[in-house]
Amino acid sequence: MDAALDRWVPPETAPPETIHKAMRYSLFAGGKRIRPVLCIAAAETVRGGPVAGVEDAACSLEMVHTYSLIHDDLPALDNDDLRRGRPTAHKVFGEAMAILAGDALLTLAFEVLARLDSIDSSRKIRLVEELASAAGTVGGMIAGQVHDLEGEGAEPDPELLERIHRAKTGALLRASVRMGAIYAGASGEELQALSDYGEHAGLAFQIVDDLLDVEASSDALGKTAGKDAAQQKITFPAVYGLARSHQMAEQELEACRAALAPFGERAQWLRELADLIVHRKN
Amino acid sequence: MDAALDRWVPPETAPPETIHKAMRYSLFAGGKRIRPVLCIAAAETVRGGPVAGVEDAACSLEMVHTYSLIHDDLPALDNDDLRRGRPTAHKVFGEAMAILAGDALLTLAFEVLARLDSIDSSRKIRLVEELASAAGTVGGMIAGQVHDLEGEGAEPDPELLERIHRAKTGALLRASVRMGAIYAGASGEELQALSDYGEHAGLAFQIVDDLLDVEASSDALGKTAGKDAAQQKITFPAVYGLARSHQMAEQELEACRAALAPFGERAQWLRELADLIVHRKN
Repeated sequence: MDAALDRWVPPETAPPETIHKAMRYSLFAGGKRIRPVLCIAAAETVRGGPVAGVEDAACSLEMVHTYSLIHDDLPALDNDDLRRGRPTAHKVFGEAMAILAGDALLTLAFEVLARLDSIDSSRKIRLVEELASAAGTVGGMIAGQVHDLEGEGAEPDPELLERIHRAKTGALLRASVRMGAIYAGASGEELQALSDYGEHAGLAFQIVDDLLDVEASSDALGKTAGKDAAQQKITFPAVYGLARSHQMAEQELEACRAALAPFGERAQWLRELADLIVHRKN
Repeated sequence: MDAALDRWVPPETAPPETIHKAMRYSLFAGGKRIRPVLCIAAAETVRGGPVAGVEDAACSLEMVHTYSLIHDDLPALDNDDLRRGRPTAHKVFGEAMAILAGDALLTLAFEVLARLDSIDSSRKIRLVEELASAAGTVGGMIAGQVHDLEGEGAEPDPELLERIHRAKTGALLRASVRMGAIYAGASGEELQALSDYGEHAGLAFQIVDDLLDVEASSDALGKTAGKDAAQQKITFPAVYGLARSHQMAEQELEACRAALAPFGERAQWLRELADLIVHRKN
């Protein structure tokens, strides 16, 4: 994935150098690459083997994810100084450059999809639509961020919690799986089964994220732990308590496995990824 | 154009309401719609008459332009309180929501292109590529903003001036014309001629923008006049003086007319637009 990302992002020596440095700083900060890996694994599940060029499409997901982190960390939003174990982009490059670097990664994500050379235009357009819609304001990532901002300090409410998380992280994780499936030419049924998997994996991811914020250290996370409680965010532990939240994560893992049943052995990688998402330590 | 934009942006009543209000506040603030109009006029020039659905494609240009204004006005960038005669987005909705509203308009622009229903996928993908590249960091709009930020207080240098303006406003204006031409199915030669027109129109637009900042009032502009000098921006008047800058704008207008010659009567609207760009009062 890092090699593919490196091919698509202009080098640090390309003018204007500062923006390319800022984009690369955040993109190559040791992220877990969960979204691109889900995309590639979904494509391989459909085809039953390696799928040429899917890692290029997957780059667009990591770019959108990274842009959202850069903007989310800004002083006007979550105001975070630490991300992936390093100072956040605005701490290093200043706020103006961080805003522009986020904008640039979002823009580049769509350019990458338009320039893919191993699938036809109609498939590329489906990918553009999936990505834009998952990142947007109608049930997508930005909707989640707005609900999240506006929900700070609100009563712990299961319905609001689900709406926030489905949008904020769920939509892009689900799109990651769907985009891999579309890239590989999945049938309607395959796409539906993989969407279900993506939805449950997304929910599991967020439950565990909320749990880690309570139970892990900043060192282990590479970002500030305990921020959710400090900012009175609506989280799974806040609404359901720790024990019940752990139980819910395991239920989502079961649902992931059930969704993959039709693929048999071909879905082994996606099964392992769901397991990793639920049992990760950071 | 306003009717088309209204169709594509979720209503203010769609949750999360705040973000849709913020998007609409900036989008429907009485902008001149120069980019969409250039796009539509270019399409009509190619076809020699009305082109169904091109106003939908044109919406993507106004969305990208408006996102760039919202982010440019933020305290961390140009820190402007007044835009199109009204308080800027962050003054009304706060910085966090202004950042997200800009992100949302950029994202929606690509969703609009993916969802166009009157052209085929290969043409849509060309539009996505044009827009992303014109808005990006390699000679595109974001490159221009970075050069502009970094150029504040630098020596008035003709080469830097051209690089800034080609990227900052030129790229998107040129793309506006090109996207209309591509939408309408222009031949290679037609596209080249219209690109030339777009390039000269873009340069003319920026020269006049710089002149208006010196010569017009804030009232007439609907934004703060005299800001370029205050922020020590590199502008045409700063590099060439007022008289020579006026002369250069007229030369660009001539170049626009020359590029349109092969289209004869069909290019009447684009001719009038070039004239409007050079002789506008705000």
